[in-house]
Amino acid sequence: MTQACISLLTDFGLYDEYVGVMKGVIASINPHATVIDISHHIAPQNIIQGAFMLNSAYAFFPESTVHLAVVDPGVGTDRRIIGLRANNHFFLAPDNGILTCILDNYSCEAVTLSRSELYLPEVSCTFHGRDIFAPVAAHLSNSRDIHLLGQTISPTHLIKLPDTKPVITKTQISGKVIMIDRFGNLITNISKNDLSQLPEPSSIVIHVDDCQIFDIKNHYAQVPQNSLIAIIGSKGLLEICVNCGNAKKILNIKIGCRVQVTQTKT
Amino acid sequence: MTQACISLLTDFGLYDEYVGVMKGVIASINPHATVIDISHHIAPQNIIQGAFMLNSAYAFFPESTVHLAVVDPGVGTDRRIIGLRANNHFFLAPDNGILTCILDNYSCEAVTLSRSELYLPEVSCTFHGRDIFAPVAAHLSNSRDIHLLGQTISPTHLIKLPDTKPVITKTQISGKVIMIDRFGNLITNISKNDLSQLPEPSSIVIHVDDCQIFDIKNHYAQVPQNSLIAIIGSKGLLEICVNCGNAKKILNIKIGCRVQVTQTKT
Amino acid sequence: MTQACISLLTDFGLYDEYVGVMKGVIASINPHATVIDISHHIAPQNIIQGAFMLNSAYAFFPESTVHLAVVDPGVGTDRRIIGLRANNHFFLAPDNGILTCILDNYSCEAVTLSRSELYLPEVSCTFHGRDIFAPVAAHLSNSRDIHLLGQTISPTHLIKLPDTKPVITKTQISGKVIMIDRFGNLITNISKNDLSQLPEPSSIVIHVDDCQIFDIKNHYAQVPQNSLIAIIGSKGLLEICVNCGNAKKILNIKIGCRVQVTQTKT
Repeated sequence: MTQACISLLTDFGLYDEYVGVMKGVIASINPHATVIDISHHIAPQNIIQGAFMLNSAYAFFPESTVHLAVVDPGVGTDRRIIGLRANNHFFLAPDNGILTCILDNYSCEAVTLSRSELYLPEVSCTFHGRDIFAPVAAHLSNSRDIHLLGQTISPTHLIKLPDTKPVITKTQISGKVIMIDRFGNLITNISKNDLSQLPEPSSIVIHVDDCQIFDIKNHYAQVPQNSLIAIIGSKGLLEICVNCGNAKKILNIKIGCRVQVTQTKT
Repeated sequence: MTQACISLLTDFGLYDEYVGVMKGVIASINPHATVIDISHHIAPQNIIQGAFMLNSAYAFFPESTVHLAVVDPGVGTDRRIIGLRANNHFFLAPDNGILTCILDNYSCEAVTLSRSELYLPEVSCTFHGRDIFAPVAAHLSNSRDIHLLGQTISPTHLIKLPDTKPVITKTQISGKVIMIDRFGNLITNISKNDLSQLPEPSSIVIHVDDCQIFDIKNHYAQVPQNSLIAIIGSKGLLEICVNCGNAKKILNIKIGCRVQVTQTKT
Repeated sequence: MTQACISLLTDFGLYDEYVGVMKGVIASINPHATVIDISHHIAPQNIIQGAFMLNSAYAFFPESTVHLAVVDPGVGTDRRIIGLRANNHFFLAPDNGILTCILDNYSCEAVTLSRSELYLPEVSCTFHGRDIFAPVAAHLSNSRDIHLLGQTISPTHLIKLPDTKPVITKTQISGKVIMIDRFGNLITNISKNDLSQLPEPSSIVIHVDDCQIFDIKNHYAQVPQNSLIAIIGSKGLLEICVNCGNAKKILNIKIGCRVQVTQTKT
């Protein structure tokens, strides 16, 4: 069997001991698992940001990786905790929409994490990351069988986020900024594939805030320093950037800002 | 022998190379150790914060884990560096009070890290994390015998922090906020066990700043969004929180703020 | 063969998924490699900061560690990506000067990473950390032979940063602040070895901003709290610090600020 791998995506930050404690629990159950942080800096309780980041990241991990996605404002309520198997990866998350992109793109097997004998002996009401997610992930990284985690459920009944996809017409794609990275690059929910549905993808205008951009380049250095540029970024998504600068600061844009791609001639 | 595990708790932050260098030293001596960060964001030289965080975290790690706690304003002076064995875990730290909670709660074996042949060949005056703590931790994760690290000492002579425990009378517990986490939750030094010493724990009033809270709930969603709530948090300590909000910001509270739990009837 | 070790130094930060994705790629190719973060908080595109941090850190890692240094404003242009073998360590980086200190101090073997069959199958224009650096590092951590990575080149043709070294005359060393750490310590490019070239190293005056310091101490506690002190820090470089305080804040100093060490008598 290949080396067990577990990825972690949370809104816990790194200031507190929460992430370290989860890794301690994992090491207690599967000491040989490789544990990799995707990020712990999801904005507190921002499920949509978690959903998109997970989708950008997970496929670059080894097959059979267990991806833990814990952005969980409903912790302690009766919200379900679910396990998915999709595209040869495993996912554990609260049933709150954070797995929307996975559910949209793949056929999935799903379970609820109902086998409480896999939890820590004492389960708190406020830190299921430590008491449920971490121990179940460690067990799953050993067994690689989600059906050992609990009851099988239909993936069609799982919660999905609304409005994650752009609206596409014959001549226009209307999306939004869904992430802003450290460099101030504005990442949209408009994919390379979405753009290919326009009749003439090379004749477009992109509107973001008050700015217009008239084509999509391949890399930053194709425009002068401090100039605005649109590219298909490394996630396969349309990004609005500034070469050697920070688009977020220059345009004063926030997550959620509308981005429109309009056909200029056909 | 089980997989070696080393945890790191420091005030070094992650902006500089200090933590990475410690891990490089550990990997040079025990390349198979699993190294887990508890946190590196203890406020610079804040020993009491380190003491409480270590106490909240360590027991979730595998038995025989070596816990390195390096918050060390006295680095380079003649302050001692000590090793403890307590509750089937190992602890390495400067003798400055950061192990207070461990010393208070368990019978310990103690040594000074006097065997300098376990240090790096050159020891700087300002970075014992790299030159002493990291190599000694790596050796200890191999040997699992603190008596190989140096001279046995009496744990009763080790430095402890004052005022870490609440003052408990028949009708009142007087404690304080000792940590504030990323979500703005105010974590007190009043434990579930302390509360059980009141004659009627269900009839209380909690005073924090100008606010009063009249009972202790189980999880956040038991009060409306943006409402104040008291819970026994995942550390087993009384926490003052705001459901889906940030108690620190809303109450404008700092670490050290007094929290009183008063019996209302008996 | 000893355990494979890979270190990562980037300006990617930890807010996005970029570093996690690189580790996922590495785990897919060499699941047994130990991956250690030096830092991901290099200021965006600050090559000189990366160069000095790498030089301070790398030698504390196991021999044959693969050090990935990805501060890469030219990503997507025709800038080369290079591999070095020097001082029994490996280095992978863009050819932009980030390896200046290594090239200055050691005889090196060098290659360009021209063997594209070692890259990920699809290479983006903006994230070579994921698509080229991570997979090549994983392969190198297995093979430990840089000549399998691409074409041999002469290290003399590689790009080096100007002005990294202080100017030394018979009676004066003129350097600058090159890093400021979390504690506000001002780290200069003046080494212990540079200082030993003055005829009377114990009779000096250090000028930084408007301040004068008249000798070099061994550790912080040799001056009163909140006093300015000069020491040879743990990197072997002259540092200007404040005991139990923050020299950066107190002096209001920035990276690049001039620091002069002048002989007062001979």
